Amino acid sequence: MKLIRYGAPGQEKPGVILHDQKFDVSAFGEDYNEAFFANNGLQRLAKFLQKNEGQLTPIADSERLGPPVARPSKLLCIGLNYSDHARETGATPPPEPVLFMKATTSYTGPFDEIIIPRNSTKTDWEVELAVVIGKRASYVEEADAADYIAGYALHNDVSEREFQLERSGTWDKGKGCDTFAPVGPFMATPDEMGDVNNLRLWLSVNGQMMQDGNTANLIFNIPFLISYVSQFMTLLPGDIISTGTPAGVGLGFNPPVYLKHGDVVELGIDGLGTSRQVLKAYGQN
Amino acid sequence: MKLIRYGAPGQEKPGVILHDQKFDVSAFGEDYNEAFFANNGLQRLAKFLQKNEGQLTPIADSERLGPPVARPSKLLCIGLNYSDHARETGATPPPEPVLFMKATTSYTGPFDEIIIPRNSTKTDWEVELAVVIGKRASYVEEADAADYIAGYALHNDVSEREFQLERSGTWDKGKGCDTFAPVGPFMATPDEMGDVNNLRLWLSVNGQMMQDGNTANLIFNIPFLISYVSQFMTLLPGDIISTGTPAGVGLGFNPPVYLKHGDVVELGIDGLGTSRQVLKAYGQN
Repeated sequence: MKLIRYGAPGQEKPGVILHDQKFDVSAFGEDYNEAFFANNGLQRLAKFLQKNEGQLTPIADSERLGPPVARPSKLLCIGLNYSDHARETGATPPPEPVLFMKATTSYTGPFDEIIIPRNSTKTDWEVELAVVIGKRASYVEEADAADYIAGYALHNDVSEREFQLERSGTWDKGKGCDTFAPVGPFMATPDEMGDVNNLRLWLSVNGQMMQDGNTANLIFNIPFLISYVSQFMTLLPGDIISTGTPAGVGLGFNPPVYLKHGDVVELGIDGLGTSRQVLKAYGQN
Repeated sequence: MKLIRYGAPGQEKPGVILHDQKFDVSAFGEDYNEAFFANNGLQRLAKFLQKNEGQLTPIADSERLGPPVARPSKLLCIGLNYSDHARETGATPPPEPVLFMKATTSYTGPFDEIIIPRNSTKTDWEVELAVVIGKRASYVEEADAADYIAGYALHNDVSEREFQLERSGTWDKGKGCDTFAPVGPFMATPDEMGDVNNLRLWLSVNGQMMQDGNTANLIFNIPFLISYVSQFMTLLPGDIISTGTPAGVGLGFNPPVYLKHGDVVELGIDGLGTSRQVLKAYGQN
């Protein structure tokens, strides 16, 4: 299945994509949130669709898409998980996964504007494969990790490099700014995906290709990451782990290249669609 | 007002403390969550209490207390915010606040057990004054910050020092382990507090006083912190900012002293009550 959420921010309704067409499933009566995933929502939704496929109302293309799952309890990210990206930032590939969190207030729709924060001069892009957790996960074995995956989605891990790296402390100041986590257009369940260890992922700015990588080059793969993170905290249904970005971010250029008001970022991953965000300076129209 | 939540984990019911007695306010019909604070819940609860004070049911002392507000969207913490603590960790006081987040799955009740994670040898304590945000806060001026405070609570910012400092990346691996954020016993609204810039805060382990500080020694005070954090992300109603710990943590001893199975931690802050947690090694009874 391919899950979407549509409508005004904070008031999204559930939908699905069937045969490349978007349909409303408000009649299913649930948002795609922690309770949905915890209570076999995906299986129940599949049954609902079998029964009701012919009666669903199409969603107009003019409708805004929100992120495809509800605001998670945790938006976890893996840093420096492609060796070419680690190199471009001047870091050596880490001996174990680098973990950080994005404030969930950064979570936004795949075609929403990205707001450049006040006093920001170093807003940067990062295309990433995000994994949605399907059930409560604590001390999970790597061999069992697949059982904990609800699906996958496209994520732009937007980052303010000065806030992240030059303002004391952890990375959190530059990773969790409002609108810094566009996710979607949809969440695809694992059966919709080919080999997730061989997906092209790319990102362009104003039409110029900046990142063009492949998940085959992940240093730590998805089952390892789920097992690893679950040693430090319990993952809840609907939580998101974003798996890192390949080379080609703005910080990696010499001199660095950052986003400015009016820039257009487009990104995509094989099987997970594309998204597009226009940059807007805080307080400008 | 003094707000409490009681009952089984995840199924807490709302209550209040009036004249040192705990009362159920399930009849008010709302949990103390984001929607409650966003919709003038504190004012509405005050009116409810005026009307119903004589008819409230006392809560038995045997009832478990949960954290006094519902799981927040963000559990933000300020690091190294007392100069004596910065010194004991070997850090110089930072030029601006150090910000990090705890996974909200770490959030737990004031008398719950603290689970020492598997493979942990460096679980440590930190008594802190936590501030609960009352309304949506973005780019708040320091002079207006008081308007955004719903109340205050006692917090033990439990930390695994090896996970935090020796395992690659940010502090998140050692700050967000399950049970690492006991909050409560209650949230006090600002009118219940004296001068929040002059509160004694202390913590003992097995009856031995380890931390004994005063919020007068905060490097960055609460209005500054609210304003500062709101420059980087929007604070939501019910979000928590924990303001840092004074000297006396286990890491600061030479050699360091860490918590082990069976240890008892007690802590308190003037006007915010006391809490007590027994340490339990993961998987042991």
